[in-house]
Amino acid sequence: MDYAQLASLADQTLNDELRQDARAFLAEQHPADLAMHLADWPVELALRVLELLPLGRQAEVFGYFDADDQLTLTEQLPDERLAQLFTEMNADERADLFAELPEATQHALLRRLKREEQEDIRRLSAYPEETAGAIMTTDFVSLREHMTVQEALDSLRAQAPDSETIYRAYVTDDIGHLIGALRLQNLIFARAGRRIAELVEPDPLAVLVDSDQEEVARHIAKYDVLAVPVVDADNRLLGIITYDDAMDIAEEEATEDIHSIGAVGDLDENVRDAPMFTLYRKRIVWLVLLVFGALFSSGGIAYFEDTIAAYVALVFFLPMLIGSAGNAGSQAATLMVRALAIGDVEMKDWGFMLGKELVIALALGATMALAVSGIGIFRGGPDVAFVVALTMLIVVLFGSLIGMSLPFVLQRVGVDPATASAPLVATIADAGGVIIYFGIATVFLGLPAPGSA
Amino acid sequence: MDYAQLASLADQTLNDELRQDARAFLAEQHPADLAMHLADWPVELALRVLELLPLGRQAEVFGYFDADDQLTLTEQLPDERLAQLFTEMNADERADLFAELPEATQHALLRRLKREEQEDIRRLSAYPEETAGAIMTTDFVSLREHMTVQEALDSLRAQAPDSETIYRAYVTDDIGHLIGALRLQNLIFARAGRRIAELVEPDPLAVLVDSDQEEVARHIAKYDVLAVPVVDADNRLLGIITYDDAMDIAEEEATEDIHSIGAVGDLDENVRDAPMFTLYRKRIVWLVLLVFGALFSSGGIAYFEDTIAAYVALVFFLPMLIGSAGNAGSQAATLMVRALAIGDVEMKDWGFMLGKELVIALALGATMALAVSGIGIFRGGPDVAFVVALTMLIVVLFGSLIGMSLPFVLQRVGVDPATASAPLVATIADAGGVIIYFGIATVFLGLPAPGSA
Repeated sequence: MDYAQLASLADQTLNDELRQDARAFLAEQHPADLAMHLADWPVELALRVLELLPLGRQAEVFGYFDADDQLTLTEQLPDERLAQLFTEMNADERADLFAELPEATQHALLRRLKREEQEDIRRLSAYPEETAGAIMTTDFVSLREHMTVQEALDSLRAQAPDSETIYRAYVTDDIGHLIGALRLQNLIFARAGRRIAELVEPDPLAVLVDSDQEEVARHIAKYDVLAVPVVDADNRLLGIITYDDAMDIAEEEATEDIHSIGAVGDLDENVRDAPMFTLYRKRIVWLVLLVFGALFSSGGIAYFEDTIAAYVALVFFLPMLIGSAGNAGSQAATLMVRALAIGDVEMKDWGFMLGKELVIALALGATMALAVSGIGIFRGGPDVAFVVALTMLIVVLFGSLIGMSLPFVLQRVGVDPATASAPLVATIADAGGVIIYFGIATVFLGLPAPGSA
Repeated sequence: MDYAQLASLADQTLNDELRQDARAFLAEQHPADLAMHLADWPVELALRVLELLPLGRQAEVFGYFDADDQLTLTEQLPDERLAQLFTEMNADERADLFAELPEATQHALLRRLKREEQEDIRRLSAYPEETAGAIMTTDFVSLREHMTVQEALDSLRAQAPDSETIYRAYVTDDIGHLIGALRLQNLIFARAGRRIAELVEPDPLAVLVDSDQEEVARHIAKYDVLAVPVVDADNRLLGIITYDDAMDIAEEEATEDIHSIGAVGDLDENVRDAPMFTLYRKRIVWLVLLVFGALFSSGGIAYFEDTIAAYVALVFFLPMLIGSAGNAGSQAATLMVRALAIGDVEMKDWGFMLGKELVIALALGATMALAVSGIGIFRGGPDVAFVVALTMLIVVLFGSLIGMSLPFVLQRVGVDPATASAPLVATIADAGGVIIYFGIATVFLGLPAPGSA
């Protein structure tokens, strides 16, 4: 059997034999693959296939769907079945889904759940988005320091089925304060009579519940840990965040930065599945803002209209000059935005980076000036070549320094540095470039100064 | 004690008491934090502090340094001490470092290592860069299917100290063919007399040794596994790749894509520490290429010089029109580059995405046309407003479709789609925009056709 056959089967009433064939096929599939295929199917078909699986596995597959696919599926699920699924789902995944559900469904669902599950869902879905609290799970294993190794192993065995990982266990005192962490590896190779207090690693690398999710992901990557515990201000253990969540967050944050650099607003969905109006909205805001930004370039051109009219050949060089300023600026901004995001560069490096950029941009500008002066001589003689080369040197410098500084400035005033998009930097560099170019041309080519006519 | 005090101590000859204080402080630090601080210190100082640590911990800290910091440190290490460090380092990390060492150091080093270590290093460092082989480690645990649970646990205990993880063990037949995987969790809770063959999970999600590292990272993220086994074409187990490597690769690949989108060449180093000449090289190539790309815009302007001379006011709108084409194109390219990189969109979606982009770009273009026609009426009357609005609609459509398609075209011809940088797309959109703008203006404003004078 393959997925295509499965789809055609799911469409008919199955006899026992076919049902068994389908179940055998499903049992061999990884839940991630199953979710990937089912996501492309019509909802009713996907639900019929899901129904063939044991409940625990249904929840597992369900956890691999995208947020929007999950929502679509839940709309078709009877409340009773949704409640069953919720009972089996990971605590962090179900809290995320719960937060997205319509209020009526939330109520219907909560009424059908056990009290402790209700509370768990309410608590987890109450944390602000993109914080440690919002992404942590309460499915972790905790041990007490007075336990023996044997008691701890027994406790782990009991907790294992409901836990995301038992490879790192967290040790608390009797009222839930986090004391340390313990690797399963150290536990199973220890003598059965030893106390947990002797084995515990004192610094469990905890994060605060209100930490930014990006910070948490970097924390996990930096220390190469499987999971980090999440605590409140009193050091009480609230949950854990595992490496696979950290990977998802890192991917999400990189996507956000990349979109930002390309002047696209924050897009949570897959670009293939996102509604067209959403994509329109995420793009039009910056396009309109930038067109008004371009008015500064236009203003510069209007100001120098007489210069241009007297020497129309100058317009020939305009695209390459302002283009180069924008390109050098985009490069500098891109380098800084990423370096700030992954922590390669920090606020305190601003001065150092500015000095470095000054030297590099001068070298870039000089090379570009050389390249463009050749075209200048060919097109307009030595005078024009001089003006064009000098302009190139200055606009590349200008663009680079703006591009490099803007992400720092934004970060300083509390705005995401990735807002310093390539188009934004290019627009600013354009406006500066127009004024620098025609200003230099007016001076060196003996053209009428603006307004002198 | 803190890091500042440690630095001042490391500079002097230590008496026993101070040395012990320093050691006590060091013992409390996470190797990742130690490496981070020592990387900023003068090399001799860092080496003196490293020397205070037990050899195994030295190797651990060393493994957390950046590649270039590792190289700098090794230059100052006597061959004998370097050999000791190598013996303790993780197999994958030392192979990476080995590949970077000067040939003379490689020879001196190999002579001092045991035969099996020599072979391990030679083999691992021989795999092509950015493949599964180059990033895998040989420090994994393997079990045989005929073992009992008790035998397997004993074997794990023996292998544990040299392994990157024992939470996933791999089961092979007697000549090394991969049969399946086993979670430590399932092993420790199984009856001691059961056979491994009964517990093994048959599909260990293996990757081929010559797979691209990006693919491997996505594989690990998709299946949420701690580690994946790496096999050759005959399904022989060669090594494993763990989630922390996958996180590093994902970060590296995202950085590469971001730089590419900003038209910066592939930069392996931290932008703060990278030599200025390296940064110059990574930027100048694209800047020069793009300036020649801008010649097409200039050519367009030269072609329409008479049109421009007859109606200089048209230049006023040039920046916002070609800027908008470039911005819309940058947005589309950025969305596609990222979607292709994370697998949200595939080659087969090209047609679908093109249709979607057509609708979105028309909506964007219409909105922008409206915005700019206001400025057009104010600045040049209804005729100019009409020309400017029509141009805007067409150039936004043109820029968007180019920006959307270019990443697909590049991927199709085997070039990294991220080469479709915002500046490249903007340059192409500029050239098209100039011709479209002045072409429309010539037709609708009754201006002299180019060459008609």
